[in-house]
Amino acid sequence: MKLWKIRVHQILNEADTRPGLIYEYILFGFIWLVVTSVALESVRTIEEHYGLLLFIIQLIVLACFITEYFLRIIIPNQPLKYIFSFYGILDLLAILALSSVFFEYKLHFLVVVRILRFLRVFKVLKFRQLREESNALLNALKQSGNKILIFVFSFVLLCTCFGTIMYLIEPEESGFTSIPKGIYWCIVTLTTVGYGDITPLTVAGKTIASFIMVIGYGVIAVSALIVTSEANKHLSEEEKVSNTQTCSHCLESDHKDGALYCHACGNSLKDV
Amino acid sequence: MKLWKIRVHQILNEADTRPGLIYEYILFGFIWLVVTSVALESVRTIEEHYGLLLFIIQLIVLACFITEYFLRIIIPNQPLKYIFSFYGILDLLAILALSSVFFEYKLHFLVVVRILRFLRVFKVLKFRQLREESNALLNALKQSGNKILIFVFSFVLLCTCFGTIMYLIEPEESGFTSIPKGIYWCIVTLTTVGYGDITPLTVAGKTIASFIMVIGYGVIAVSALIVTSEANKHLSEEEKVSNTQTCSHCLESDHKDGALYCHACGNSLKDV
Amino acid sequence: MKLWKIRVHQILNEADTRPGLIYEYILFGFIWLVVTSVALESVRTIEEHYGLLLFIIQLIVLACFITEYFLRIIIPNQPLKYIFSFYGILDLLAILALSSVFFEYKLHFLVVVRILRFLRVFKVLKFRQLREESNALLNALKQSGNKILIFVFSFVLLCTCFGTIMYLIEPEESGFTSIPKGIYWCIVTLTTVGYGDITPLTVAGKTIASFIMVIGYGVIAVSALIVTSEANKHLSEEEKVSNTQTCSHCLESDHKDGALYCHACGNSLKDV
Amino acid sequence: MKLWKIRVHQILNEADTRPGLIYEYILFGFIWLVVTSVALESVRTIEEHYGLLLFIIQLIVLACFITEYFLRIIIPNQPLKYIFSFYGILDLLAILALSSVFFEYKLHFLVVVRILRFLRVFKVLKFRQLREESNALLNALKQSGNKILIFVFSFVLLCTCFGTIMYLIEPEESGFTSIPKGIYWCIVTLTTVGYGDITPLTVAGKTIASFIMVIGYGVIAVSALIVTSEANKHLSEEEKVSNTQTCSHCLESDHKDGALYCHACGNSLKDV
Repeated sequence: MKLWKIRVHQILNEADTRPGLIYEYILFGFIWLVVTSVALESVRTIEEHYGLLLFIIQLIVLACFITEYFLRIIIPNQPLKYIFSFYGILDLLAILALSSVFFEYKLHFLVVVRILRFLRVFKVLKFRQLREESNALLNALKQSGNKILIFVFSFVLLCTCFGTIMYLIEPEESGFTSIPKGIYWCIVTLTTVGYGDITPLTVAGKTIASFIMVIGYGVIAVSALIVTSEANKHLSEEEKVSNTQTCSHCLESDHKDGALYCHACGNSLKDV
Repeated sequence: MKLWKIRVHQILNEADTRPGLIYEYILFGFIWLVVTSVALESVRTIEEHYGLLLFIIQLIVLACFITEYFLRIIIPNQPLKYIFSFYGILDLLAILALSSVFFEYKLHFLVVVRILRFLRVFKVLKFRQLREESNALLNALKQSGNKILIFVFSFVLLCTCFGTIMYLIEPEESGFTSIPKGIYWCIVTLTTVGYGDITPLTVAGKTIASFIMVIGYGVIAVSALIVTSEANKHLSEEEKVSNTQTCSHCLESDHKDGALYCHACGNSLKDV
Repeated sequence: MKLWKIRVHQILNEADTRPGLIYEYILFGFIWLVVTSVALESVRTIEEHYGLLLFIIQLIVLACFITEYFLRIIIPNQPLKYIFSFYGILDLLAILALSSVFFEYKLHFLVVVRILRFLRVFKVLKFRQLREESNALLNALKQSGNKILIFVFSFVLLCTCFGTIMYLIEPEESGFTSIPKGIYWCIVTLTTVGYGDITPLTVAGKTIASFIMVIGYGVIAVSALIVTSEANKHLSEEEKVSNTQTCSHCLESDHKDGALYCHACGNSLKDV
Repeated sequence: MKLWKIRVHQILNEADTRPGLIYEYILFGFIWLVVTSVALESVRTIEEHYGLLLFIIQLIVLACFITEYFLRIIIPNQPLKYIFSFYGILDLLAILALSSVFFEYKLHFLVVVRILRFLRVFKVLKFRQLREESNALLNALKQSGNKILIFVFSFVLLCTCFGTIMYLIEPEESGFTSIPKGIYWCIVTLTTVGYGDITPLTVAGKTIASFIMVIGYGVIAVSALIVTSEANKHLSEEEKVSNTQTCSHCLESDHKDGALYCHACGNSLKDV
């Protein structure tokens, strides 16, 4: 491998080094630039006035993305590995999406997928602390995978049942024109989002709706309350333990409530 | 009992065996199929174009359900036990509901009750881990039954009181046309769903509404905050505790609680 | 005190005894009856058809309430103590409110205050378990009184500031016609209720609104996430500790990570 | 420094002393007065009737604020330190904002910034307990700074992606007229606020919306559920652990972890 190849490889992939880190920041800048330009272009008034400027920005960024893509293919010994990797496909999609600025379709908005590359941030992170936190969170997610599965499953069951019932009860005027709409409404209500585009009008519908809301809120509120009072109970128990006797023999003071003999040396606690 | 009876019994009831598990999956497939077909039928445009197809699917599933129901009655020695069990009644209801496709009523939508059979999933689950998680959750629910009772009771009290007050304060135009509507609005607000179909218009009404919202949010937010700072306090205390004794020999200070000898050099900690 | 007085006193006040408990249940029945009748009367269609029936029910309940009130005054030696107690005032208010059925005002709806007597449920509760739970919750609330104070204070500050800013930014059409309305909107948003009767229309307003929403959601979500990962970290730490060495001398197995000597007997762990 | 200067300095800055505390309360009174008067002035009907009264109140408070500002500059030896401190700038801004009552602009509403001075409450607090709580909360916030960073970052990523997708999927009629609006809608939905000013109309849009809602709710609900069942598991484990060793002498079995002697009879537990 030639020296310039090693150099470019280092810049592209090794965010630990200084040039690699700088490249990383520039890349992030470019991505935000193109995402912002695409977002602004979708606003009609801005598009009318600054359309050309945004078009030029997108062209420049497109050129940079293409250059980067080819460099990433040319440099390593196994180009296929990059092409079929998650980030490789993402980069290609972003280029294809952005290329559509030349055509009629408004698919270039999809360049937004490239911000998913920001997920790399979690890998690149220099700060050891942040990396650990991130791992702790992911770990917590993984360890509780089964609980999440049960949760989602119960959620789907509940929404299907109540969505159908609401469709049967409510008249057409209230917006429950089909079962899928009922299920959609049930999700909106159970998650406490509550748009208000579909709302029950009959007494029976409102009663069931109230019931669903209380479930949705209760899952969070009751859980929070249980944990709180549990935490406080735990705290007061600990305080109880720390207020007890001290052994006159070995000066051990952390005894069980109602202990008669020191658990460390066997001396009687009462003799004191 | 004849051999085929034993075989069918195994398929129908013993999800531990291979054929039982396959049957289980097929049953789930059928239930989702009929629920989806019924849900799609409720959408007018789909019903107009694919009505016949959906009708045929429902007929086939109905035939399968009836076959299964009779098999479940014929096979065991005590057929009554199944008929009056929770799942037996559920299955019968599903068949009756689905049978209404031949009549004018749109009751066949109620076949959706059969997805409650999916609750069996929790019992059938092969994966020991998931079963334990499920039990842990149910246990947590059972242990805190009283807290939930208090919660629901306070909730009802609060909603009744504030619902009445809002009815008295607000004019008819704002939607508070009766006390039950006021209670409904109170539930919508307290659970932070907030449809917006009924909203207070007067200053007094808005003030009370703000108060209710803060309660609804506070129950969750304050609980969450308390637990968080409690957890952090706990953490820092633990760190403090582990820094107590210092070994006089090697100056190691991070010993276990109640350690008698230094874990780094074996010197007695008590001799100090 | 005569025997019948003792008897009545027992019924009215001692819910521990059998007659007292029965009276308690009957009283609760009456309160729910009058609250329900008053709630139904507020619905116009029901009032038109069953107005007389509801009126008679309210008359009967009123008679019972008055009888009970006088009995409670006559029986004990210190009648003033009851009259000026919380429940005494509540009972009087309920009677006065209900008396207004004879007049033009619709104040009899206020009889609903009497359901606050249900708060006594928490005191009367026969089940020791539920009483403890209730105390644990109240205790948790009391212990964290200061945190709640800080929370409410920060909440008020935030809403006042952002409410004013939104009033200055947003045009009249979006509903922010005065600062109090801005504050009201801020409370609706921060608590994630979101009626949608007032919504920002300008870009700046939407940006600030997004910011407020993220705060409102973040307080709950971040707290919940922190506690979760903390709980998991704690769990995995415990697992680490329990997978370590066993001392060959005293068979103590619960050593610190990387311990060289047994903390219980001082024997070298490496020699094993 | 002259005596009156020392006196005034004490009043202005030392909230520990009696006069300082009184001054503190008066200042708070004035701030609330002007904030309330400004808030009321923004309500048109009140402004028409009591405009002059509110104007006079604001003038008086303005005079007081200016007096206080100059006193704070004159008294100490380093006036610049106060002028460029956070509270100094805040006070100046409040005076400038309030001065605009003489002009056409409605900037005097900005006097509301002065309530940020209430943040000093946390510093001034006499009650040691409340100060500790406040510190615990701030500490918890600081320690979890990284988690919050990850949270906000993921939040932004999610909203940008889904906002763009919704813009591409939904027709103009549903309100998704630009990508920024899509992002705004996504924030409103993910935080479970749900105004309902922009709602999806297509089936695909509703499906994605449901997905976003479940994420928004799931982050809180799943976290809460995990912690709850974790707390309960922990509780039952603790009970298990304490039932390990049994004393051979008195058969007491509920010993502390690591106990060497029975706490009930003093017999050695190891001899067993």
